[in-house]
Amino acid sequence: MTTETPSAPSPSLAALAAPLVERLVADAAVLRLGLQRVGGACVVDAGIGHPGGLEAGRRIAELCMGGLGRVALGPVPGVADWPFGVTVHSAQPVLACLGSQYAGWSLSHGSGKGAFFALGSGPGRALARQETLFDELGYRDRADSAAFVLEVGTVPPAELVAHIAATCGIAAERLTLVLTPTQSLAGTTQVVARVLEVALHKLHALGFPLDRVVDGIGMAPLPPPGGGFLTAMGRTNDAILYGGTVHLHVTGPDDEAEDLAKRLPSSASRDHGRPFAEVFAAVKGDFYAIDSMLFSPARVIVTAIDSGRSFHGGALTPDLVERSFRDVR
Amino acid sequence: MTTETPSAPSPSLAALAAPLVERLVADAAVLRLGLQRVGGACVVDAGIGHPGGLEAGRRIAELCMGGLGRVALGPVPGVADWPFGVTVHSAQPVLACLGSQYAGWSLSHGSGKGAFFALGSGPGRALARQETLFDELGYRDRADSAAFVLEVGTVPPAELVAHIAATCGIAAERLTLVLTPTQSLAGTTQVVARVLEVALHKLHALGFPLDRVVDGIGMAPLPPPGGGFLTAMGRTNDAILYGGTVHLHVTGPDDEAEDLAKRLPSSASRDHGRPFAEVFAAVKGDFYAIDSMLFSPARVIVTAIDSGRSFHGGALTPDLVERSFRDVR
Amino acid sequence: MTTETPSAPSPSLAALAAPLVERLVADAAVLRLGLQRVGGACVVDAGIGHPGGLEAGRRIAELCMGGLGRVALGPVPGVADWPFGVTVHSAQPVLACLGSQYAGWSLSHGSGKGAFFALGSGPGRALARQETLFDELGYRDRADSAAFVLEVGTVPPAELVAHIAATCGIAAERLTLVLTPTQSLAGTTQVVARVLEVALHKLHALGFPLDRVVDGIGMAPLPPPGGGFLTAMGRTNDAILYGGTVHLHVTGPDDEAEDLAKRLPSSASRDHGRPFAEVFAAVKGDFYAIDSMLFSPARVIVTAIDSGRSFHGGALTPDLVERSFRDVR
Repeated sequence: MTTETPSAPSPSLAALAAPLVERLVADAAVLRLGLQRVGGACVVDAGIGHPGGLEAGRRIAELCMGGLGRVALGPVPGVADWPFGVTVHSAQPVLACLGSQYAGWSLSHGSGKGAFFALGSGPGRALARQETLFDELGYRDRADSAAFVLEVGTVPPAELVAHIAATCGIAAERLTLVLTPTQSLAGTTQVVARVLEVALHKLHALGFPLDRVVDGIGMAPLPPPGGGFLTAMGRTNDAILYGGTVHLHVTGPDDEAEDLAKRLPSSASRDHGRPFAEVFAAVKGDFYAIDSMLFSPARVIVTAIDSGRSFHGGALTPDLVERSFRDVR
Repeated sequence: MTTETPSAPSPSLAALAAPLVERLVADAAVLRLGLQRVGGACVVDAGIGHPGGLEAGRRIAELCMGGLGRVALGPVPGVADWPFGVTVHSAQPVLACLGSQYAGWSLSHGSGKGAFFALGSGPGRALARQETLFDELGYRDRADSAAFVLEVGTVPPAELVAHIAATCGIAAERLTLVLTPTQSLAGTTQVVARVLEVALHKLHALGFPLDRVVDGIGMAPLPPPGGGFLTAMGRTNDAILYGGTVHLHVTGPDDEAEDLAKRLPSSASRDHGRPFAEVFAAVKGDFYAIDSMLFSPARVIVTAIDSGRSFHGGALTPDLVERSFRDVR
Repeated sequence: MTTETPSAPSPSLAALAAPLVERLVADAAVLRLGLQRVGGACVVDAGIGHPGGLEAGRRIAELCMGGLGRVALGPVPGVADWPFGVTVHSAQPVLACLGSQYAGWSLSHGSGKGAFFALGSGPGRALARQETLFDELGYRDRADSAAFVLEVGTVPPAELVAHIAATCGIAAERLTLVLTPTQSLAGTTQVVARVLEVALHKLHALGFPLDRVVDGIGMAPLPPPGGGFLTAMGRTNDAILYGGTVHLHVTGPDDEAEDLAKRLPSSASRDHGRPFAEVFAAVKGDFYAIDSMLFSPARVIVTAIDSGRSFHGGALTPDLVERSFRDVR
């Protein structure tokens, strides 16, 4: 006699991430992170006044994927002069990348020169649920603690901390905010670890059904950290746009997988072909004037698992990566 | 004064694997595995009615090595269009690969169209001890729980479950069967993670003494999963036969290591040179008509650690891998 | 209101390493290590009378970095015929590599033929504090247990064991000594895992301020183990000198980072260009006659994180690695 267990519910991102948050805080001295309380919340400085590091970035990236991803540092092929990189895969790529890792919650406080702005990423987004994306994902988390990663260089004001906690429905004391400036070691690492997320985000923008994405793995070279924000923003983008590779596994017909492989890579964008910082300068820093189709890995492989056929799209352009990692702005 | 501890007994594969089995079951929802009870045993569906994934396959591969192996997903060189692969090494390669991971126990029930057939792999084999190989290994395990991996697309009948439990001398409730169809994500991953095992199996068939194998590490590209069984069987074999590399460390004279390096790679077989699915078709699906010497990695390095000399044999043939991973049947 | 936690104290190497030591001893049978008591201390044989293995070496390398490093075995690019290697990075490279991993404590007992000599590495060095380096590091550890790694082929005498324990201020029963002969599997692995340490040691010798080293990652091919001591010493050095790559992140002015990148690689030494065993033979085994500037990775990348500029120095010389790994002495 055979009895079938009903399909298990989606895991709680908050519950999966909680032990990673606890260990990050416990290992703060080892990872050279700063800890402070802001409005009751635990704020982890991973590169503002404290140095942090590559390993801190690796662990923050895994936390940012809600404990559903594995991020490794090591050799990554493709760009001769920059042999080290990041590899990432996830047991549940859509939930890990779009439900957690994607920087989708726009957070701001104040106006003018003292204004604070950040895009919130991490497992706490599924508690805050301020994005329509969660309806599409059909995902709702419940928990009494929340964690976010903010790619910023300043500490958020207590008022904003209170707002985040309230939106999540938790006590501020149970909120953890991890701050990773783009140009910091941890920041650079955790941004490049988004190579798979960037692919899934564009796939979603292209209208490919998320429930047909079964699995994925990605890698990208690790840019040299440091320099100013513009340099770092340029390089972390270029690492993915011109040096990143993603292999996705999807269900459904071959022609849709083939079409996806054609449209997904960054080369399908009209803005492809120049280092990102140049693109950004050309639009005078108006981020929203950049073709959103640019934000995707250089090279993709899409396997249609129903048929077993695969489709390749795009290609690495190592010379653009070399130029980006060498120049400063 | 110096006192020597007597040489420690061989570890219990079942004891080492037990926590990995427990965690796999506990993480079933995260890893998108199905759980059901069949004849009292816990049956884990890793790709039949549930999607599973690459990470599930990685963990199943480590379980299948009795907790004695490390399996990593990441960049693997050799085949330009297929940059991701599997790397595997083991603290005790002979015990991990031949004593546990090898699919050596022939399991069947019924006859005709409804018959069930599978080759059982995993740590439970050392409890069942239905293969003469265990006499050669001089290994006997004792435990009150057992775990097997079956590369199948259907759930085994309760009668066979009862037979497995009885043969292992355990209660059916303490038996775990992990089902990984060849074409599933987990199945593809765990089969390719056998690249080191395949080398050891052929080494054994060539008559090289197992107790002279001290260590080993292997890698192979990860084929695109999906498609039909024939496609998947072809690709997982080709990943190893034409894309796999193994480095073995052996004791004994140089000439025997040199001879091993010459005879071990797949190129030493008369059936080498065509995608496996073609070979299989040429013998009209009669598996046993295929030269058994074909089943080995494309490229081997054998180090004779007594002298420090190494011997290289075989070579990757990336064009055959490309063809195999591209074509479907 | 914002309250800042004062900068956390440096972590205790001994405390971080303790669980790794415990697990190494607990897994001795799995890792094929011998255990004995010498003068009350726990002596772990990782390649003298017991085989040990690559995985044992990997874990010993992490222990030797005081629990502050990550060491992985897998594909490493650069030397076509030797595709496997070691990758290493650390949350605190200076403390992990120079404060712990560096073989800096000269240990000897007796004289003449029966004399014992070893260079002690590992977290226990920061308790013994017999090197002026610790004043420069400004680091002092306190603990009631200590662990060392000794690259030797004989068991140290009880008198030396007592001396080590006394110098550390601990009971001999709380001392662990891990013995890894150079030519053993574990020895080869743990030596090559020093690629980052070797870079930091030379950086220090060049007078670059250690407190300006923020992070680093390195990799090197894994030489075939075995053979005699001279062969193994030659190969493990060559793996780093001609096959090793390190990427360092430093603070301070660009010109100093550029100068470091120029002077750091092994190619900056007058003894560069021949396999190490030849260099060693040419000076008739007088180790101190070899240019100390030779001991560094083949290729370095130095990123000045203040500006974001990077500087490349040196290059891999795969033909020298091939020759070294092929020849025996």
